[in-house]
Amino acid sequence: MRVLGVDPGLTRCGVGVVEGVAGRPLTMLGVGVVRTPADADIGTRLVGIERGLEEWLDRYAPELVAVERVFSQHNVRTVMGTAQASAVAMLCASRRGIPVALHTPSEVKAAVTGSGRADKAQVGAMVTRLLRLSAPPKPADAADALALAICHIWRAPAQNRLQQAVAQHAQHAAKGRTS
Amino acid sequence: MRVLGVDPGLTRCGVGVVEGVAGRPLTMLGVGVVRTPADADIGTRLVGIERGLEEWLDRYAPELVAVERVFSQHNVRTVMGTAQASAVAMLCASRRGIPVALHTPSEVKAAVTGSGRADKAQVGAMVTRLLRLSAPPKPADAADALALAICHIWRAPAQNRLQQAVAQHAQHAAKGRTS
Repeated sequence: MRVLGVDPGLTRCGVGVVEGVAGRPLTMLGVGVVRTPADADIGTRLVGIERGLEEWLDRYAPELVAVERVFSQHNVRTVMGTAQASAVAMLCASRRGIPVALHTPSEVKAAVTGSGRADKAQVGAMVTRLLRLSAPPKPADAADALALAICHIWRAPAQNRLQQAVAQHAQHAAKGRTS
Repeated sequence: MRVLGVDPGLTRCGVGVVEGVAGRPLTMLGVGVVRTPADADIGTRLVGIERGLEEWLDRYAPELVAVERVFSQHNVRTVMGTAQASAVAMLCASRRGIPVALHTPSEVKAAVTGSGRADKAQVGAMVTRLLRLSAPPKPADAADALALAICHIWRAPAQNRLQQAVAQHAQHAAKGRTS
């Protein structure tokens, strides 16, 4: 499974491509940041993010795009820009028919470090170890994008098992009602 | 001046096209709503909004797109969807090189009713009168989109005068320092 992780932001939008399956060593295919100038108007910045993400989708053809789920409870000053950049990421993926998955920051931290409250350095250290890199990816947004992709690959089987369990339970319940 | 007003939303995105200049009767060219199903995933909904807005931009070729400025202080449950829909509107306009203007809800209400705290009915009534319509546009999102366009047309000259005054003041100040 090949996943493009996107840590959305207007100034720095982290992107990272990871390939692999749960329980096997993962491979990083690419990592980087799409930047837009802080003094440009918002529309121009969103166009810049769209162009940057399109290049990543063209180059790596991911099967799924994992985007950080944005909460409005966060820092009020930056949350709108984050929500807008995440909208562009979801739009670019969906326009190509690529499924989008959303993961919260604490889900991502818990997936790669074991703790939903891990700090940036801890996430960077685990991403480095899990992808067998020589140094933590910089800036932190790039490392966070890789962590998102890893989180999705590792959570996907659990989510599938959960969905199967729910479906089986529903079948059993339905049988119970009709028998 | 021809302005497309956009009242952003995922379920109902209001759109309205108004033509005219400040101080002269205005003309409505079109009004409507781009809808996306509440049970579709977010990426699919954003693609639906993009397609809908592209049709409006194709048909009316506005010189400017006026979008409601979203604040994160508003209703936490709906604000993320509003921010994401507004991102798509700004992206579609900027991609075509069409300038984007943002106006707050209270600026819009004040422009068309004289009060920044006017209710939906009052805004609808004034939009109906100012555009010489036979009935208020429904739903309210459509009326709000027209109000946004009207607000922009009426505020644009004032903004230009303000910019000129600031520029002249800066010139005078510079002369004062050098004499």
